[in-house]
Amino acid sequence: MPPLMVSHATFGPRPEAVPAVDVAGEFETIARLLRPLAHPDYARNLSDDVAVLPSRPGHDLVLTKDALVESVHFLPDDPLDTVAQKLLRVNLSDLAAKGAEPFGYLLACHWSDRCGWPEREAFASGLAADQKTFGIHLLGGDTVVTPGPLSLSATLLGWVPEGTAPRRAGARPGDAVYVTGTIGDGWLGLEAARGRLALAPDRVGALAEHYRRPVPRLEFGKAVRGMVSAMMDISDGLVADARHIAQASGVGLALDLEVVPLSAAAHAWFDIRIDPEAAMERLVTGGDDYELLLTAPERDEAALRREADRLRLRLTRIGRVVAGTGVEARYLGNRLDVGAGGWVHGG
Amino acid sequence: MPPLMVSHATFGPRPEAVPAVDVAGEFETIARLLRPLAHPDYARNLSDDVAVLPSRPGHDLVLTKDALVESVHFLPDDPLDTVAQKLLRVNLSDLAAKGAEPFGYLLACHWSDRCGWPEREAFASGLAADQKTFGIHLLGGDTVVTPGPLSLSATLLGWVPEGTAPRRAGARPGDAVYVTGTIGDGWLGLEAARGRLALAPDRVGALAEHYRRPVPRLEFGKAVRGMVSAMMDISDGLVADARHIAQASGVGLALDLEVVPLSAAAHAWFDIRIDPEAAMERLVTGGDDYELLLTAPERDEAALRREADRLRLRLTRIGRVVAGTGVEARYLGNRLDVGAGGWVHGG
Repeated sequence: MPPLMVSHATFGPRPEAVPAVDVAGEFETIARLLRPLAHPDYARNLSDDVAVLPSRPGHDLVLTKDALVESVHFLPDDPLDTVAQKLLRVNLSDLAAKGAEPFGYLLACHWSDRCGWPEREAFASGLAADQKTFGIHLLGGDTVVTPGPLSLSATLLGWVPEGTAPRRAGARPGDAVYVTGTIGDGWLGLEAARGRLALAPDRVGALAEHYRRPVPRLEFGKAVRGMVSAMMDISDGLVADARHIAQASGVGLALDLEVVPLSAAAHAWFDIRIDPEAAMERLVTGGDDYELLLTAPERDEAALRREADRLRLRLTRIGRVVAGTGVEARYLGNRLDVGAGGWVHGG
Repeated sequence: MPPLMVSHATFGPRPEAVPAVDVAGEFETIARLLRPLAHPDYARNLSDDVAVLPSRPGHDLVLTKDALVESVHFLPDDPLDTVAQKLLRVNLSDLAAKGAEPFGYLLACHWSDRCGWPEREAFASGLAADQKTFGIHLLGGDTVVTPGPLSLSATLLGWVPEGTAPRRAGARPGDAVYVTGTIGDGWLGLEAARGRLALAPDRVGALAEHYRRPVPRLEFGKAVRGMVSAMMDISDGLVADARHIAQASGVGLALDLEVVPLSAAAHAWFDIRIDPEAAMERLVTGGDDYELLLTAPERDEAALRREADRLRLRLTRIGRVVAGTGVEARYLGNRLDVGAGGWVHGG
């Protein structure tokens, strides 16, 4: 553990004379790796204490902040370019669920001992790639060293037209429930990345890629924000997040797990399970999917499908909103008991 | 080190069924400790993925993000209510330097093993106290566990009237250089908190308090944002931060260290040094002062002093802006060589 010293490595020039932990490293990290990523107008070239952002009349600013810790949220041997991308994407997924158009982020890097120049360069290259993919820029932040594991947080900012960001709280009895994409690839991807899946290498690779670099559904979120009654991204697992909508909206959600969409790789895994109920439970409670879960009135189904088709995105109706509370998830005639874990047969 | 699991404890309800590290703890932390701190209008009760903020026409949004790591930026035995306050205040100090009115923040807590309920409650009570002091509210964020030391980051948000946030880059030759308050209490406060100062207990207590709970100069920053040519907060030490202004503005700063304002406690320490030059070097390079450093045209001196007097804040003219580069800091006829450390006698 390094000695305690003064080291507020806020983005901004940092002279050699300051008695701080690895300040030269933080200074060079900012100058060489982060400044090229800065927003051209609002980041003050990362040489002030702040970012200054003009208001955008008629729009709301959407803010989200997620943190990742090595060995807790990503694997110690995950390449750092993908860790940077995962950091941005788990946050971008929150913006997607609110129909927001992302434009920038602030970043806090707590570098561990193992983060030398090659690791920091890989991290910055991952940021650069996703800045291009998603049209965002770095606005500011902080870079410090830690005696602990590599830890990261990002605050993502996006705009939506005033009053249009969907809530979790708007689901009404009679609404249909949908998910985008496929479910379970996040959990399977973690298993794949840990070398625990006995599947063909291309399946393992596709799943690990999904775990490391999920795809936030930004375009779909923007397209449907005016049609949905509730929307959120699936980060804790389909069933858990359905409960979040149920709880926030004061309703129940009835899910038919037989129609839950699986990827080809997930099918390859699922089809050789000897206990399909246990396997399905894993897929719908595993988390890290970063698909969108939404509810909408019946009358909007055709419009939702048009937007999904236009974006070539799978959209699956998996249930309905009912009066009551909580989630009733059924599969092969049995009911998943989320609280206790496991299945209530014939329940 | 806990096993790697899916644990995106974004503020928002978190069901028991999700296989995650201490998820119940994070869930209860949000529900019991953080939700009472949430902004009544914009934080969505911490039960959505995001905060949604209306634009404020005619105003710019000022954003800053600083991180603190235990044993790097604060002491392992610092009370956690003061750690929470320091986290907010180092960020509020950045807003002060831009004349911004703070209104809210996002928070990432990476709790270490030692953070049980008493520690988390103390932390939340520190946030609550400073929310009241500074008129701010929690907007959102993330709470996770880490196998490393307690680590924190906050993103602070404030408003300024459009185009009025001072830069570091505006200092012009002929401008005068000022500091608010007193210099060196941050470094002395760290020494005091570590039990290394042989001073009367009330002196030691006052200095440690300054280190743990610095006072951001928000009112003064707002009052003078229209008069200054450059302004920043002093976090890296007076001389280092003067160099930041010199570099950003493309000018030199000539500082007279004989007039640098010291607190009564700092005087008590300084007056018994056998080497005043070495002692002065410590005070002006130590950092963690969180006073404001500003430059302004001569003609604005009376107006600046009026604002300082109104706020009962000490304002000291410590030098002038000159053509050239870097900082020339003189004391007792000698020149402080910042790059090499130490003094150039008769230099």
